Amino acid sequence: MSVYTTVDNDTLAQWLERYALGELVELKGIAAGITNTNYFVTTTHGRYVLTIFEVLKLDELPYYLELMSHLARHGVACPAPIADHTDNFASLLAGKPACLVTCLPGSDVEAPNAAQCRAVGEMQAQLHLAGATFPRKMHNPRGPRWWSQTAATVYPYMNEADAASLRAEVHFQDSHRFDHLPTGVVHADLFKDNVLMNGDTIAGFIDFYYACNDVLLYDVAIAVNDWARRPDGEIDGELARTLLAGYQSIRPFEAEEQRGWPVMLRAAALRFWTSRLLDLYQPQEGELTYTKDPKVFQRLVEAHRVRSDFWL
Amino acid sequence: MSVYTTVDNDTLAQWLERYALGELVELKGIAAGITNTNYFVTTTHGRYVLTIFEVLKLDELPYYLELMSHLARHGVACPAPIADHTDNFASLLAGKPACLVTCLPGSDVEAPNAAQCRAVGEMQAQLHLAGATFPRKMHNPRGPRWWSQTAATVYPYMNEADAASLRAEVHFQDSHRFDHLPTGVVHADLFKDNVLMNGDTIAGFIDFYYACNDVLLYDVAIAVNDWARRPDGEIDGELARTLLAGYQSIRPFEAEEQRGWPVMLRAAALRFWTSRLLDLYQPQEGELTYTKDPKVFQRLVEAHRVRSDFWL
Repeated sequence: MSVYTTVDNDTLAQWLERYALGELVELKGIAAGITNTNYFVTTTHGRYVLTIFEVLKLDELPYYLELMSHLARHGVACPAPIADHTDNFASLLAGKPACLVTCLPGSDVEAPNAAQCRAVGEMQAQLHLAGATFPRKMHNPRGPRWWSQTAATVYPYMNEADAASLRAEVHFQDSHRFDHLPTGVVHADLFKDNVLMNGDTIAGFIDFYYACNDVLLYDVAIAVNDWARRPDGEIDGELARTLLAGYQSIRPFEAEEQRGWPVMLRAAALRFWTSRLLDLYQPQEGELTYTKDPKVFQRLVEAHRVRSDFWL
Repeated sequence: MSVYTTVDNDTLAQWLERYALGELVELKGIAAGITNTNYFVTTTHGRYVLTIFEVLKLDELPYYLELMSHLARHGVACPAPIADHTDNFASLLAGKPACLVTCLPGSDVEAPNAAQCRAVGEMQAQLHLAGATFPRKMHNPRGPRWWSQTAATVYPYMNEADAASLRAEVHFQDSHRFDHLPTGVVHADLFKDNVLMNGDTIAGFIDFYYACNDVLLYDVAIAVNDWARRPDGEIDGELARTLLAGYQSIRPFEAEEQRGWPVMLRAAALRFWTSRLLDLYQPQEGELTYTKDPKVFQRLVEAHRVRSDFWL
């Protein structure tokens, strides 16, 4: 979203009185963020990240913020939301829902090495384990039903060959069910730009606003599809194996998960192929400049059809 | 307590599997700690402090650990306990209750400056505000009833003049009630060695194992009696004023609190005078080397009798 919400120092200083964080020292916009406005907020007590939500409503936030708090409390590397004196993580600022979270010392990497992939896999497994005691539930709004409907919306815009490929994949996925695989809390968007790294250590997973309850293996497939994807669009088998080894050092896959892996890699690619097609052909107002190439995930789906199980 | 519990790497590594904290890298004992054993524990994910409780029982810990978690979640500078995969903060290690908390970058100061005193006052007020939404309760086991009984225990050991002074103070305090003053969660032991500073910033309040529900002003008096006490045992009016100004920048005192202040300073000094007398005359096994001088607080009580209200 290119329409950012502007907050001035006085407004923020007044809002900060809700918190035990001391006085405002500095307010600085953050360029990243597609659907939210983010600022670095420095107070006399420390540095925090302010997020102003442009789409999510105040009553939709507790699931995500309490999840982050739960995970942080369990030692999973992620920002910890700060509660205000009314014991809430979010409230209105400039008329929009807003929250503060701890600021983590790290940055995202474009070309991860094997050690970083291993660390991501390991921390993702820790997230899956720690999520088991999180009491709230959220269904995945971008599951099979969503991508089938979205595909139907975008077929008319596509050329015949691409539409046929998409239709074939939707049909293929429709014929596979994952109801028997372990489920739990998943990040559902664990791309490289949603992980802050500090050298080879995870400083934190960020951007939990697609998190939901779904098949754990699906989350792993989303991560592998991004972290192990080479610049040429193909999967780097070494990076994929390393991420999976890191994951399985904490939570080894069950036999059913190993069997489901090749199909799951395609499902995870299909989800982003369809969402990027929708963003391309039916962009939301103000989002044009951020549209990402759907072809990346089309190529990945098609590559996975040929071979996708050799990392397990 | 000079009897420390020793933990070896293998035992700890196995216990760490309860947590999402990665693998053990280093285990290092911490010399400080009178009643508990503390270690620095470095894992592949970060650095933590391990506390093994020598006196408190497993079922006594939730109040303190949940309080620390609550305060940390509100941005009050203190260690955040880490929950394990069963969602508990503490479990048995080497047969004793143990927990892990985040490691804060700071150290205690012996001779605080005015800025540090101000920061302590301000953070203590933040603690008092944030404590208002903490649902658990704990009465103060070292309140007026306790010090009266303890004084009766130690009179026989004392010389006549000192005993008369103590008896006079217990009698004086018995004639004052603070039931009308604001109460809430108090740290109750906010001495200089229980605050980690990072320059003039509070890295964290630590050692919450005397925390309870009591009169907020009593907590402030405990802090002033230590933070503003000069090496000669007298109160430094400038430091006291600065700490109180920091506190009142967040939570201004009510008129009743201002009136109660001189008596409260004496009450806070009496509490440590009596506990140190008890430690001196009836030491707990293994504690001898840590006995602190009761005279410090006797002098303070006696000085407060002469003048104790000029900082408000």
